[in-house]
Parts: sequence; C-alpha cells; structure tokens
Amino acid sequence: MPTYTPPLRDMHFVLHELLQVSDELRQLPKHADIDADTINAVLEEGGKFASEVLFPLNLSGDQQGCTLDKSTHAVTAPAGFKDAYAQYVAGGWPALSVDPAYGGQGLPLVLNQCFYEMLNSANQAWTMYPGLSHGALECLHAHGTEEQKRLYLPKLTSGEWTGTMCLTEPHCGTDLGLLRTKAEPRADGGFSITGQKIFISAGEHDLAANIVHLVLARLPDAPQGSKGISLFVVPKFLPQADGSVGARNGIFCGAIEHKMGIHGNATCQMNLDGAIGWLVGEPNRGLAAMFVMMNAARLGVGNQSLGLTEVAYQNAVAYAKERIQMRSLSGPKQPEKPADSILVHPDVRKMLLTARAYAEGGRALAIYVALLLDKELNSDDEDERRECADLVALLTPICKAFITDNGWIATSHCLQVFGGHGYIREWGMEQYVRDARINMIYEGTNTIQSLDLLGRKVLADNGKKFKKFGKLVAEFIEEEGVNEAMQEFVNPLADLGDKVQKLTTELGMKAFQNADEVGGAAVDYLRVCGHLVYGYFFARMAKIALQKQGSGDPFYTAKLHTARFYFTKLLPETAGLIRTARSGVSPLMAMDEALF
Amino acid sequence: MPTYTPPLRDMHFVLHELLQVSDELRQLPKHADIDADTINAVLEEGGKFASEVLFPLNLSGDQQGCTLDKSTHAVTAPAGFKDAYAQYVAGGWPALSVDPAYGGQGLPLVLNQCFYEMLNSANQAWTMYPGLSHGALECLHAHGTEEQKRLYLPKLTSGEWTGTMCLTEPHCGTDLGLLRTKAEPRADGGFSITGQKIFISAGEHDLAANIVHLVLARLPDAPQGSKGISLFVVPKFLPQADGSVGARNGIFCGAIEHKMGIHGNATCQMNLDGAIGWLVGEPNRGLAAMFVMMNAARLGVGNQSLGLTEVAYQNAVAYAKERIQMRSLSGPKQPEKPADSILVHPDVRKMLLTARAYAEGGRALAIYVALLLDKELNSDDEDERRECADLVALLTPICKAFITDNGWIATSHCLQVFGGHGYIREWGMEQYVRDARINMIYEGTNTIQSLDLLGRKVLADNGKKFKKFGKLVAEFIEEEGVNEAMQEFVNPLADLGDKVQKLTTELGMKAFQNADEVGGAAVDYLRVCGHLVYGYFFARMAKIALQKQGSGDPFYTAKLHTARFYFTKLLPETAGLIRTARSGVSPLMAMDEALF
Repeated sequence: MPTYTPPLRDMHFVLHELLQVSDELRQLPKHADIDADTINAVLEEGGKFASEVLFPLNLSGDQQGCTLDKSTHAVTAPAGFKDAYAQYVAGGWPALSVDPAYGGQGLPLVLNQCFYEMLNSANQAWTMYPGLSHGALECLHAHGTEEQKRLYLPKLTSGEWTGTMCLTEPHCGTDLGLLRTKAEPRADGGFSITGQKIFISAGEHDLAANIVHLVLARLPDAPQGSKGISLFVVPKFLPQADGSVGARNGIFCGAIEHKMGIHGNATCQMNLDGAIGWLVGEPNRGLAAMFVMMNAARLGVGNQSLGLTEVAYQNAVAYAKERIQMRSLSGPKQPEKPADSILVHPDVRKMLLTARAYAEGGRALAIYVALLLDKELNSDDEDERRECADLVALLTPICKAFITDNGWIATSHCLQVFGGHGYIREWGMEQYVRDARINMIYEGTNTIQSLDLLGRKVLADNGKKFKKFGKLVAEFIEEEGVNEAMQEFVNPLADLGDKVQKLTTELGMKAFQNADEVGGAAVDYLRVCGHLVYGYFFARMAKIALQKQGSGDPFYTAKLHTARFYFTKLLPETAGLIRTARSGVSPLMAMDEALF
Repeated sequence: MPTYTPPLRDMHFVLHELLQVSDELRQLPKHADIDADTINAVLEEGGKFASEVLFPLNLSGDQQGCTLDKSTHAVTAPAGFKDAYAQYVAGGWPALSVDPAYGGQGLPLVLNQCFYEMLNSANQAWTMYPGLSHGALECLHAHGTEEQKRLYLPKLTSGEWTGTMCLTEPHCGTDLGLLRTKAEPRADGGFSITGQKIFISAGEHDLAANIVHLVLARLPDAPQGSKGISLFVVPKFLPQADGSVGARNGIFCGAIEHKMGIHGNATCQMNLDGAIGWLVGEPNRGLAAMFVMMNAARLGVGNQSLGLTEVAYQNAVAYAKERIQMRSLSGPKQPEKPADSILVHPDVRKMLLTARAYAEGGRALAIYVALLLDKELNSDDEDERRECADLVALLTPICKAFITDNGWIATSHCLQVFGGHGYIREWGMEQYVRDARINMIYEGTNTIQSLDLLGRKVLADNGKKFKKFGKLVAEFIEEEGVNEAMQEFVNPLADLGDKVQKLTTELGMKAFQNADEVGGAAVDYLRVCGHLVYGYFFARMAKIALQKQGSGDPFYTAKLHTARFYFTKLLPETAGLIRTARSGVSPLMAMDEALF
C-alpha cells in the first residue's frame, strides 16, 4: 500500500528561502500581517488533512468509482468521500484564500497552492470536487451581480455548495464557438436553458447540498461562433432569497463516463431541459468571463500533476530502498544481504531523480506563479500589478503543459521502478499514471497550451511578456556570472537563454510567412521554455544550497545534487527539441490527408 | 468503437520490396519452395482471423477481465476467448512456423512475425495465451529429451495444449539467482516441486485441455545463485503415454492479479505443492535453457507494442479526419464546414506521424530480425548462421526496448488526438496505452535490455557484433553517397553513425574505469542505437520509394513523407540523448541513499 508524507520541508524552502513570500506578501495591504509561522502552521494542518483523511481513500476510491442511479439521476461518490468532504468543510478549508467579505479567511494564494498540491498528492479524484468550486467562485466574484454574489458566494466559500464549469458538448471541446446549448429569456429576467454538456467533472454527486453550474449557452439573437456565447449560473436547486435551497432545477446527470483514471470523480453528461439560469456578466461575453475560471483551472491542473509526481516519487524511493535485486555493476554494496537494494543501479536513480527534479522544479514554479497572482490581485502599485499579470499570463501555459507532461513521464518512471509490481493495482503506482493522463487533456489540451504560449503570449505582443521573464534570467546570470561555484548552473542557463531568444526570433519570422509554422513548432517550443524556467529556478535554488551547505542540514546537499542532476540529465533534452522546432512545419503538412 | 485493418500493403512492402524475403528464404534448403504468393495468401487469411475473430473481443475482454473460482482454482477467460481459441486451433494457426516433425507447417518465421503483429493489434491480451506456447515449444524442442518432445511437442504444435514460463517469485524478478522454489528427486526419475511463482501470464485458463509449465527451481544440492537453477516441465495434467491427459498435477492458481491493463489475460500466482516435474536439459543449467524461450519472448514483446502502435495509429487517423474543430492557423481548409478537420493542425499531424513512423520503422526492424532468425536456424553456411545469430543478439534488446518505449509514446499520442474522448473507455484508445505499459516491464525491463545491449552485446565483445551492423550502414551510405536525391537521408544517417561510434568508444573507455558508467548511459545509448537502426531502414525504404514514386501508387509518396518526417522530427532526439549519455554517471551516484 502506498504512503504519503507532505513535503513541508521543501515547501518551506521555496516559500521562505527561495521566494521570501512573507516579506513579499507584507508589502501588500491585504496581507500586511502575514508571517512565516502562520503559513507553516496552516500547511502543517493542511498536510495532516491530506495525508490522514484523503490519502486513505485514494486506492479505494479508484477501485469503487462513482455510481449513477438512473431513475433519480443521483450520483454517489466512493465510500468515505462524503464524510471527508464534511471534515473539509468543518475545518474551514474551502474558505482559505477567499474574500473575507463572503466569509473567507483571506489568506494568500501561495498557501492555497501548497495546500492543494498536498490534496492532489493525496487524492486527485476527491480534490476535483472542491477544486472546481474555486473557479466558479472566482468567476462569480469577478462577473456576477451583487445579488448573485450574495446568493452564491457565501455558500461556495463555506463549501456547503460546490461549483462546476459546463463548457464541452459532444461535438465541441476546444472549439467552443460551435456550441449549441440555448438560453431563452424568461419573463422574470432569468433564462430557460436547454442542451447537453459532457465531461462535466463533479457535475453531480452526494457531497454537498447544492451544485452551482456555470454554463455556456447561446442567446436567441447571438452571433455565430465564439462571439455569441454567454455565461449563465444554473444551480441544481434554486436558491431561496434567504439562502436556503428551493426547487430542483431542470439540470440532470444522464450518464457518468467510464474513464482511464480519476474514477473517484464523477465525470457527468449533464442534460439541461429548460433549466433556469441567470446571466453572468454581459450577453455574448461569456467566453471572456469563463476565462477567469479557465486560467485558474489551468494552474490547478498543473498542480494536480505536481501532486502526483511528488507522491509517486515518494513511493518509488521507498520501494527502491527496500527491494533487493542484483548487485551493483561496480561491486556489491550491501555484501551482508543476498543482493543490493535497487537504488545502487544508476538507471533506477535516474528514474527517481527525474521525478524528484520535476517535483521540485514544478513546486518552485507553481508557488512563484501563486505569489505573482497574490501581487497581481493585491498590489497597490498599478505597474507591479501589470508586471505580475504579464508574467502569470506567460507562465500559465507552461504550468499547465510542462508540469503535466513531466507528471506523465515521472509517474511512468516511478511505476517502472517497481518492475512488475508497478503494473498491479494494489501497489497504487499505476493509478498515478492513469490519473496523470487526463491532466494533459482537460482545461485545454497541451497542444492548445503551446499555441497559447507561442502564438498569443509570445509572438502576438512581439515578445514583450517573454522579455520580462528573460530579464529576470539575465539579471541572475549577470549577478552570478562572477561566482565560480555557480558556473555549472549559470553557463548552461545562459546558453539556453540565448538559444531560446534566437529560436523565438526565428519562429516569429517564419510565422510571418506561414502561420502554420507556429503550430508546427509550438509544442517543442513550450518544452524548451519550460526547461529555461526550471533551469532558472534550479540555478537560484542551487545558489541558496551552496550558501547553506555548511549548515549541516542535509536538505541543502540533496537540493544541490538534484540541481546538478537537472542540468546534466534533463535540461539537455532541449538540444533535440530546438532542432525539431527549427526543422519547420513542412515535414508535417506535406502529406495529403488521403495518404494518412 | 475502434476498428482495425491489417496493414498488408506495408507488410508486403517490407517483405518483398525492402527485404526480398522470398529470394532470401529460397536460399535455405528448408524454404526452397516458398514464394511471395504463399506468404501473401497466408497473411491475408491471418489478417482476417485477427480482425474478424479477435478484434471484436478486445474491448469486451478488457472490461470483463478474468475470474478465478477459488474453490476449484479454475480461471475463466473473458467471454468469447475460448471460442476464438478453438477457431485458432481449428485453423491450424499454432502450427504455422513449427517443425513438421511434430505436426507443424514449417513456414518461415517472417510469416509468423507478421501474423503475430496482427494478432497483437487485434487483441494483445488474447494473443498472450497462445503466444507463450511458442516459447515453451522452442525451449522443449531445443533442450527436451526425445520422450519429452514426443509427449509435449505435438500438443503444443496443434494448440491443444498451451505453455507458460514460470520464473518470477515474490522476492525475485530480474535477479533469478535469488529464487527459492525447490525440486526434490523422486524415485521414478521425476521431481517433486514446491514453491510459489508470481506474474505467470496465462498460468491458468479455460482455453486449452492442458497447460505445460516450464518452471525454474533448485535441486537439493544446487549451488547458490544463478548457477544453481534448473528447468523443469510441469504439466497441469500429467500426460499419459498415449498422449491423453491423466491426473491433475499439484500446480494451482492461488490468485489472479488486478492490473493496469491486459485484463483479458490471466496473470496468475501459481502455487506448486509437490507438483511432479521432469528435468529439461542439464541440472543447474536452467537459466541457459530458459534463455532460448526468453529471447523469443523479448522479440515477441516488441511485436506486441508494434501491434498496439499500428492499431492506435489507424484509429487516431480515422478520428482526426472526422472530428472538426477550429480552423487551420493558415486559413480555413474546409470552408463549407463549420470548422476544419483536426488533421489541418500541425501538432495533430505530428502526433499521428510519430505513431506511423514508429509503426513502420518497428515493422521493418521486426521482420528483418525474423528473417535473420530464419537464416540463423536454417542456413547451411555456418558463417552465415553465426553472422545472423550475432545480428539477432545485437538487435533483440533494441526490438524489445525501443519498440515498446516507442509504443508507449505512440499510443499516448494517439489517445491525445482524441482529446477528452481518448480518456473514455468506450473509444478504446486508453486501453492501448494501458496494455502497452506492461511491454516495457516484462521479459526483462527496458533498463535490463539497455544493459544487455551496451554491456553484453556491445562492450563485452569489443564492439564485434556492433561493427557488423555498422558495416551494413556504412555500405549503404557509401552506395547512396553519390545519389543526390538521397542526401537528406544519407547525411543525417552518416552523421549519427559517426556519433554512435564515438560514443561507443568513449563509453567503453569510461566503463573500464568504472563499471557503473555502463548503467548510467545504457538507456540513452539504446535509444540512440534504436534511432540509428530505424534511420537505416527508413533511408533504405526512402530509396525504394524514390525509385517507385513515378509508379502512380500513392503508397510510395506516403512512405517518402514518413521517412522525411522521421529524419526531421524524431531522429534529432539523439542530440539530447548523446549529451546526457556523455555526461556520465556521477550526477546519478553522488547523492547518498539517505538523501533520496
């Protein structure tokens, strides 16, 4: 049976030593009182909830899955999920980073980021029930009327109700401009909504008293395509003026999907048959409103794979230390035993260190982006808000795609460390691989993320956002260029930085000739940029580790080894990626459709 | 629901145009009468059996899995499996390439290779029931007594009985030297065998009248470690002298595993409690005898992933052509439709072409190795037999590891082409990914394959075998170096060939200083060699395609595009791999065990 220990030491390192979040946060009026002790205390409690309440339900939740009673349209989550959710609500966890005006605790997003990493390590399928509420809450907070906020936000904040995003339809996922669900105005100012939505995570379940669906649909006079989509709030039960739950609304779960993984989360087909909804934001501006939710969700998906990478790593290390098999090629290392532990084998270490480096790099990036968001939302300096917003926009597709692609690689490596046992359900490793697979797809496939990065975030503004991150890298290289001990990190980082800059210019020129060049290079480009970002953070972390190596805390020695591993064994992948990115789109487009 | 069409055209191309197998085979006394028409006719019938009988049982087999009746130890395969097996036996398929002395048809192994690729595409889990019989048959053919051959080979040839390999125990998989199952001599010349075996594929089932287990165990006076292991034949039912089935033997299935994939195949825990067995080959030489079976099995595993890659590709292409979503970045391609098919998007094509190139490269390699085996086994020229055996030894770990790693990449890409639908069971794509995952593990993990390649096959004989393959590549480059149209293939191939040679020398020198250097570089090295091998075959295939392009057959145009894609988008991965292979083992070994 797998185990999980919250990685609090590494979180403290990133929060307090790498990013000095307390100092940064205290500059913001909203968080003037925050301190490291508060942050650490909350994380310790959060880690207990994750490891003690959620983690024990992960394997059983996968094996049981969800059940739909077709006669009542009721969905039952796996055993223990409802009780765990009640504990989550009782503990006040849903309110952690939410606006105090609606009952939230108003704590910084960096905290929520770390808390959710642990929930995802413990149980991704469970975490998707409350996880989607955050997006619904933020969307209504940003675009809802005062009346909508009053009705829904306190319940979403407390966790009494959960939320969903209803976008996808059978014939459209990526291309929401094709959607057909219709919204007809009602005399009372509401709308009558009819259509079918699919792939609705947590669309129906027995954890909460009500479910607040945010639904994309078309008004009768709406223009075609993506400019004719409006957003509606469609509750499962109509809320009464006093906040209590009223009549059942006409939105029902027609089927739940049988999936590769995340079995514990109900992926629902939702049928709307004259369901009553209310417009959120402006008519025909639904996609823009939904994007508030989508951006948060994309970061959340990266965080799911970060969590899976960490827990898979922990279990693979424990197995590698215990499992004895063969002798080291360089002579017995544990001669007193019938064989050496498999940790003596270089490739076992390579697989483990790959997962470890991807967990640590992903954690640094994800907490950094959460801190940027805290500043974007709360700084009283407009320039700083814009600066942070630009960096968040640039880094969001990298968080989503790079962390989830790496999570797929890492969980698969960790399974492999177990040999045949990794393929057997009871060991829990294959579940991490199956769960990790969806993260590369939903909330915009990783291809879409790469187009967002190269097309929209980099080329569309002539590299303005990209240069902002490049400046941070250049400053660090400049600063550490004289530090001999840092050469092994700074030199390859500087080299990669130059290459990315040249590649970006070259792709910009090519795209000018043929827009398809963007699509041909984008996936490679995102991966190269991901390595630049991780390289930057690993170099910064190595600097701290070098400074504190004499402290006697082995944590810094391990961090230094992981950074060295990263630079010698993972980052060099960019050599091949840059070559393929530069080789252009013609080898992809030359073949006639009929020849496939 | 997925579909499958046997790739007969590409098989014909590899067999008859690339490798001219009929000419080659006719040089062998055993196959003096073979011709292309016979080969093609058998493959056409074999393809029908695969696509019409087995393929419809693939999804349902995955969903039902196997069941064990604990009271009787009987295992029931999914519905339809038994009947399909009866058709397989009635059709004479088990006997295809088997020695006519025992009832076989004596057809060449290249045929069996292609036939099994199709079976694996259609239903990997089902194919493992008869698949393991081949290994048992070959092992008894090579090492059994005349009596054993007389008793077992006709039944294994006809398929009335199936076979297994019983190697793994709970505490040992890779390291068979640790195994504990005991064999005590009996007065009648047999042995009484006691112990527990795990992960026994097709260890118990209801498809055949008897199961012939080949079991590794220790004699009472055996030396410790791998030099004290003997091989025994342990039938489920003791055969009578007349070939009929007698008493039930003491080997029982105690449990079946719940696995990530291949649900339709029973992975059994086998308990031997004084089971009666007979020694196969010499005492304490069991591992050597088992390796006859193991080498065949390793090629068979590569073939499993080749089959999965092909069928996943076919379905992803069909989906990509039908699914309309978004417009091409370079302007609408199907303006009459509400959106373009997703085949207009460069990265969708990249994912598809990756799978296609890996299928075509793997097929060329696998058929080539099968032809080498036909020659190794049947040539009357001893030098040629040795030459072929050396090449087979060199290429076997590449077939196993490179094809299965690529199968994992390819099936995952094909799933991704389906977006969210790829994650849903009914579409069948996620099953291919789950099934493909075991192929990287069993019959020696892919790390073990890489150590076998670099340590045993390349460095241990000072590159002698490696140079034999290198010579083929060099001759081709020399020959085509003057052909202008071939430069785009020959130049990168020559460049990679040089780099592999240098890398090999460098790793040999390093290994001399520190044996762990082999383990640190082997996985990267195998992947680089795999690309050299595929590069060689794609260049040869491109040459033929260039020659026949004017024939009007679009097959050659497609082949040329695929070769170009391979050289520009897949082979460049070697740039990063060579860098990581050269960066040495120290970044892997430096970290203390306690710091993981």
